[in-house]
Amino acid sequence: MSAPRVVLVGATGAVGTVALQVLAERDFPLSSLRVCASERSVGKRIAFNGEQVKIELATPELFAECDIALMAVGSAMSHIYAPMAVAQGCVVVDKSSAFRMDPGVPLVVPEINADDVDGHRGIVAVPNCSTTQMVMALHPLHRVNPIQRVIVDTYQAVSGTGAAAVAELTEQTAQVLAGEPIHPEQYPHQIAFNVLPQVESFLEDGYTQEERKMVEETRKILHAPGIALSATCVRVPVPVSHSEALHIEFERPMPVGEARELLAAFPGVAVVDDPARNEYPLATEATGRDEVFVGRIRQDASHPNGLVMWVVSDNLRKGAATNGVQIAEELVRRNALLRARA
Amino acid sequence: MSAPRVVLVGATGAVGTVALQVLAERDFPLSSLRVCASERSVGKRIAFNGEQVKIELATPELFAECDIALMAVGSAMSHIYAPMAVAQGCVVVDKSSAFRMDPGVPLVVPEINADDVDGHRGIVAVPNCSTTQMVMALHPLHRVNPIQRVIVDTYQAVSGTGAAAVAELTEQTAQVLAGEPIHPEQYPHQIAFNVLPQVESFLEDGYTQEERKMVEETRKILHAPGIALSATCVRVPVPVSHSEALHIEFERPMPVGEARELLAAFPGVAVVDDPARNEYPLATEATGRDEVFVGRIRQDASHPNGLVMWVVSDNLRKGAATNGVQIAEELVRRNALLRARA
Repeated sequence: MSAPRVVLVGATGAVGTVALQVLAERDFPLSSLRVCASERSVGKRIAFNGEQVKIELATPELFAECDIALMAVGSAMSHIYAPMAVAQGCVVVDKSSAFRMDPGVPLVVPEINADDVDGHRGIVAVPNCSTTQMVMALHPLHRVNPIQRVIVDTYQAVSGTGAAAVAELTEQTAQVLAGEPIHPEQYPHQIAFNVLPQVESFLEDGYTQEERKMVEETRKILHAPGIALSATCVRVPVPVSHSEALHIEFERPMPVGEARELLAAFPGVAVVDDPARNEYPLATEATGRDEVFVGRIRQDASHPNGLVMWVVSDNLRKGAATNGVQIAEELVRRNALLRARA
Repeated sequence: MSAPRVVLVGATGAVGTVALQVLAERDFPLSSLRVCASERSVGKRIAFNGEQVKIELATPELFAECDIALMAVGSAMSHIYAPMAVAQGCVVVDKSSAFRMDPGVPLVVPEINADDVDGHRGIVAVPNCSTTQMVMALHPLHRVNPIQRVIVDTYQAVSGTGAAAVAELTEQTAQVLAGEPIHPEQYPHQIAFNVLPQVESFLEDGYTQEERKMVEETRKILHAPGIALSATCVRVPVPVSHSEALHIEFERPMPVGEARELLAAFPGVAVVDDPARNEYPLATEATGRDEVFVGRIRQDASHPNGLVMWVVSDNLRKGAATNGVQIAEELVRRNALLRARA
C-alpha cells in the first residue's frame, strides 16, 4: 500500500503547529502533506520537514485528493469540515469535542484502546487533553485492580484555550508587573498571577463542560461505564502542560510499589517519583515531551483502597497532536482508511 | 480592666506587616504596641496607626512589660521566643506550627472553637493557613451533617513561604518573560509559570508536612478525630490568597441549597457562587479581605452524600494575621490573660 495523502486542517493554531512537528519527528509515512487554515492565512507558507508548504482553504475538492484529514480546529469548525472530508473519502482524526461521545465514533488513546479504531465510520476522535493524561495513568492500574471512583482536580495550562490565550498570559503578566491596567479577553477574569476555577462553560448541575468531558470520555475510553468520577477543572497561569491531582479508589487495596511498577512498565508513561530529591512531575519539564509523567504516588490516607498521584503531560502533544498522529498511524497500520490505496 | 500591652514579634515579615494593618483596622484595644524583628532591623521604625514605632529585639525584659505576644515568626523562632514570653507572663498567640499539635495548646479559629481558648496554658496557636480556610467552609456543614471524609487539593500562594518568595516570583517571572536564566532559591524548582506539587518537606508516607498539617489540625479544630482526610498541596504562581478544591463526604446527603444557606449564614464566610455570570471565588479578589469565600458548590457526581466546592481566602489575613488578632481579642474578652490587669 502506498503512503497516504494527509491534510492538516488548522495548521497555524496551537495544536496544528505542534502536529506539524510531531508528523516530522515521527517520520509519519505520508506521500503528501497539505495544510489548511482560515482565509486570512491562505496563500502563506508554513515549514514542514524543511519544505515550505502553501496554506490552502479546506474544500471538498481538496479532501477528495487526501486519505487522512487531521482536524486541529475547534468543535464548530469540525462540525463543518469533518463530514465534508468523510463524504470525500477521507478518514478524519478529530481533536475537537464535536464527535467524541457519538456512539459511532471511536474515542482513542492508542496505548489503551487502539482496537476501537477498527469500528470507525470515517471519524476517529482524539480525547480531551485533561482526560488523555488521566486515563494513561488510570488504565495500567485499572486493568489489574478495577477502579471504582476517581476524584481529580486539574491545574490546566492556557495553551488548552489556544495560541491567543498564551499571548494573553504573556502580555497580561507583563502588564501586572508594570502596574498597568489589564483587559481580559480570552478568560472572564485576570489569568496572570491568578487561578480560575472554570474551564469552558457551566452546565445545569454546576459542573463545567470540561469537568463533564473528563467523566464521560474516561468511561468511554476505558470501557468502564460504572466508574464514578468528579472533577474540578482549574486554569492556572502556565503556558503549556497540564498537571492533575488524582485520588483513586480501587476494588482492592493497591500497594504503592505495585502501582509504581505497573505505571513504569506502561508505554507512554514515565514515573518521576523521588520525594527525597524533590523530584516529581513538573509542567516546565513535561513541555515538549510525549510522555505522561506520574509521581507523588502514595496511599490515600483517607481510604483503605485509595491511591493518590500527580500526573503531568504536555497538553499540546500527548494531550492533542501526538495522540492524533498516533491514531493516524494506527489507521495506516490497520489498513483502515476509507479509500483503497494501490 | 485596662487594655493589654501588646508586642508583635516578626513585625517586618509577610504576616507581621499584615498583622499591623489588622490591629489598626480592628481598633484592637491595646494600651501599647511594641514591635520586634531580627537584629538587622532593630532601631528602624515602622508605621502603626499613624505613629512610628521603634523596632526592638525580643528579650525577657521586653516580654515582662507586655501582656500579649503575637508571634509572626517561623517555627524555629517560636520555639525560642514563645516559652520565653510565657515565662515572663505574656500570653502568646503563635502563628507558627511549633505548638499546634501540643495537647496543652488550643488551636483556634474563633468562629469555630473560641471556647478552646479558655484551656490555654500560655500559648494559643493559629492554624495553618490552608487549614483555616478549609475548616471555615467545613464547620458550618459538619455541625448539622457530620463529615466523614474530605479530599482537598490546594492552589497555594507564594506569600505562604514568606516575603522573599513573593520577591522571587516577581523577579523570576520578569526573567522568564525576558528569556533570561533563572536562579530558584525559595523553591527547589522554577515557580514562575509553573506549579509545584510540594509545600514543605516530605514525610515517610509520601505526604508533605503541609498535607499532614491539614489532616491533624482539621481534626483538632473540629474536635473530630474520626474525619478521614487526604490532601495534595500545590504551590502556584500567585502572590497572595490560597484556593482549594474540596470534595466532602457527609453522613447523609447534603443538598446544595442547604449547604449554600448554612455557609452564607456563617460569620466570616461569604458565598460567591453564580456560575451563570462566571462568578466564583478568586485569589485576586480575596486578597486584602478577611472573609473565606466559597463557591462552585455542587453535588459530587461520584458520591451520593458528596459535595464539591471551591474555597479561597487571603492566606496572610484570615489564614494568619486576622485569625491571630481575633484570638487575641478572645483572650481580652474572656479575661484570659496570664497577668492580672488593674
